[in-house]
Amino acid sequence: MTPGPEALAATMDAIGRRARAAATPIADATPAAKRLALGAAATVLRGRMAELLAANALDMEACRAASLSAAMADRSRLDEARVEAIAQGLEAVAALPDPVGALDASWTRPNGLEIRRVRAPIGVVAIVYEARPNVTADAGAICLKAGSVAILRGGSESFESSRVIVGCMHAGLRASGLPVDAIQLVPTRDRAAVGRLLAMSGLVDVVVPRGGKSLIARVMEEARVPVLAHLDGICHTYVHRAADAGMARRIVLNAKMRRTTVCGATETLLVDRDVALTHLPPILHDLFRAGCEIRGDEVVQRMDPRVIPATEEDWRTEYLDAILSVRVVDGLDAAIEHVNRHGSHHTDAIVTEDDAAAEAFCRRVDSAIVLRNASTQFADGGEFGFGAEIGIATGRLPPRGPIGPEQLTTWKYLVLGDGQTRP
Amino acid sequence: MTPGPEALAATMDAIGRRARAAATPIADATPAAKRLALGAAATVLRGRMAELLAANALDMEACRAASLSAAMADRSRLDEARVEAIAQGLEAVAALPDPVGALDASWTRPNGLEIRRVRAPIGVVAIVYEARPNVTADAGAICLKAGSVAILRGGSESFESSRVIVGCMHAGLRASGLPVDAIQLVPTRDRAAVGRLLAMSGLVDVVVPRGGKSLIARVMEEARVPVLAHLDGICHTYVHRAADAGMARRIVLNAKMRRTTVCGATETLLVDRDVALTHLPPILHDLFRAGCEIRGDEVVQRMDPRVIPATEEDWRTEYLDAILSVRVVDGLDAAIEHVNRHGSHHTDAIVTEDDAAAEAFCRRVDSAIVLRNASTQFADGGEFGFGAEIGIATGRLPPRGPIGPEQLTTWKYLVLGDGQTRP
Repeated sequence: MTPGPEALAATMDAIGRRARAAATPIADATPAAKRLALGAAATVLRGRMAELLAANALDMEACRAASLSAAMADRSRLDEARVEAIAQGLEAVAALPDPVGALDASWTRPNGLEIRRVRAPIGVVAIVYEARPNVTADAGAICLKAGSVAILRGGSESFESSRVIVGCMHAGLRASGLPVDAIQLVPTRDRAAVGRLLAMSGLVDVVVPRGGKSLIARVMEEARVPVLAHLDGICHTYVHRAADAGMARRIVLNAKMRRTTVCGATETLLVDRDVALTHLPPILHDLFRAGCEIRGDEVVQRMDPRVIPATEEDWRTEYLDAILSVRVVDGLDAAIEHVNRHGSHHTDAIVTEDDAAAEAFCRRVDSAIVLRNASTQFADGGEFGFGAEIGIATGRLPPRGPIGPEQLTTWKYLVLGDGQTRP
Repeated sequence: MTPGPEALAATMDAIGRRARAAATPIADATPAAKRLALGAAATVLRGRMAELLAANALDMEACRAASLSAAMADRSRLDEARVEAIAQGLEAVAALPDPVGALDASWTRPNGLEIRRVRAPIGVVAIVYEARPNVTADAGAICLKAGSVAILRGGSESFESSRVIVGCMHAGLRASGLPVDAIQLVPTRDRAAVGRLLAMSGLVDVVVPRGGKSLIARVMEEARVPVLAHLDGICHTYVHRAADAGMARRIVLNAKMRRTTVCGATETLLVDRDVALTHLPPILHDLFRAGCEIRGDEVVQRMDPRVIPATEEDWRTEYLDAILSVRVVDGLDAAIEHVNRHGSHHTDAIVTEDDAAAEAFCRRVDSAIVLRNASTQFADGGEFGFGAEIGIATGRLPPRGPIGPEQLTTWKYLVLGDGQTRP
């Protein structure tokens, strides 16, 4: 079943070459053609429901044979409702505005040259992910909308399901007269395929890894092409001394406990010393009642016997669980310093009624997303109005933050003259 | 003089750590502080004219001792006029609008959250360059304006000159109360320092190489951090059948011959077969008279005995010299295909009076800069109105095209709420 290294290299290179060849027609595809392809894919997907569920049953069997955790297997399980959600996701991306060619900015130079900066396709995007067959549809759809070609390397837990989903997307592409090579699935479970994909610097323009930390770390380490991803989401909520106590209470509970496994979940709570005795006890009360473990510094420990002592390690840990580290800080500067030192430049929030403090926090916290008086769980492309997201990036260069179809484009400059030559 | 590998590694890591430490105060520096630092640096530079010219004389002596080409040495030579130009360059960057915190876009979500995308500093930028001591001042100034720290690795041809220039910039930083580690010069000529710099992925956020093709290629190959650069500038001018003959003539001559050594110089001329007999002869006449060598396909060869046969290699060659390859093509599609296949995605132009053809060319040519009815030599941050440029990037992700202070920033999202939690 597993091909040898040379056969694998040949397979991957062929995928890359077909992707590169498809990049031009996909970049040139009209908005209507892309809409039609995604809409048709959704229709075909609904029509092939039974086939897809049968394929997913094979995946579930393989998960059991491989002794995968029940949680992991559950994330890959499909039922009619989940398939319908995938189809609706395709239709939602189809309905989004087309980002290709959209005008970012324009200005006219003294010599009369008009300069426009417009959104342009990136080219070939490789997505490496684990489990969850819906990513197959989402990622393929977002890339197509962005005018780019997708090479999908899904988790082996959803190998058969992904094959059917990609088949439906191919039907949509065909219906629209677009090349099926626009969305390709790596046809082997061999893990070495990922290494090959990451090294194809002439054929792949950017890699988007989605999954556990070890996968992301491997991709960041090995990739010879730019990576759009975040390794950690060590998000903070900071309750400033001018915070509204009730608002702080609602925000912290939501930021930690709404869903604990998402990257935008708050992992560390910082509270100003001035308001620790007034604002913190109700927050801790809510969290304990919701089943959250609290790891606190000495001040916090004295507030409640259930508080576990926090170690240095806690300040740089992404729990992705019902655990919160809590620290009392001496004001705004100390809070900002803590966030920039221990955080992961992902998403951080301040709760305050003080405009100057909010402005300073927003400016000085070096994160992709900084919030005032809102839950860190809003770190999501859908919540930003992007319609869909392929991930959240914390690299230094753009695109940074949630990546939707528009953010998954690059830009180019159009310079429009009437015969100008340069003196 | 050359330290051992361990001493070198220690030196470079110390530079990187100091740079990282300076990144926060530089990101937070006020626009006024940055303006003052650059203005004061210009003043000090003028005051240390004699010292700088003496240092430059040492560099010239070293160039002679190393048997460097006269052209290379000349690019590093300073005189009073060139030093004054460097000082004025610092003042020009000082006068530019401050990009940090500038609002890119903002919108409000149905739940009342206001989302703003604002420009934010990248962090630590390493610039690796050859010759030309003015790059030391330009690059340091652009990074500072962009709120980033600069690590400068200049050419050994301008080692002593660069030391004096950086000393002047340190005086400016001190005068403004900013850390001098904001602009650091690698204090050794050892080439291994570059390799170390490219591997410092925790301390350096992006690398900007400037210089010859072998330097750029080395940086792209070795860097473990993102690179902003272009390897080639194989720029095209395409004379469409609906081109104004006189305009085409003026644009082609300028695009090729204004300066032949810049990356925006046209290297290949494409002419529609329909107008080859009418539009091409006057263009060739001008080029020959200006001393340009023409390498043409068979049609072009028949037009003038001085035309040299072009080989396949010519279509992918950046001459950076008074040489132009010329090809007759069968219309718009063939021209676009040629540009996307043989070009370097840098800068390409169409000359036409036909709006539909211009629109298609601009949309389908996959280059950082696409022009209509203007010279490719406008590929320059100054000509774009950026005030200064640190280079032109042809990578797939933003920033793409000319990189000025604004383009040398990243972005972040501010999310402003009044207590929103996520359902």
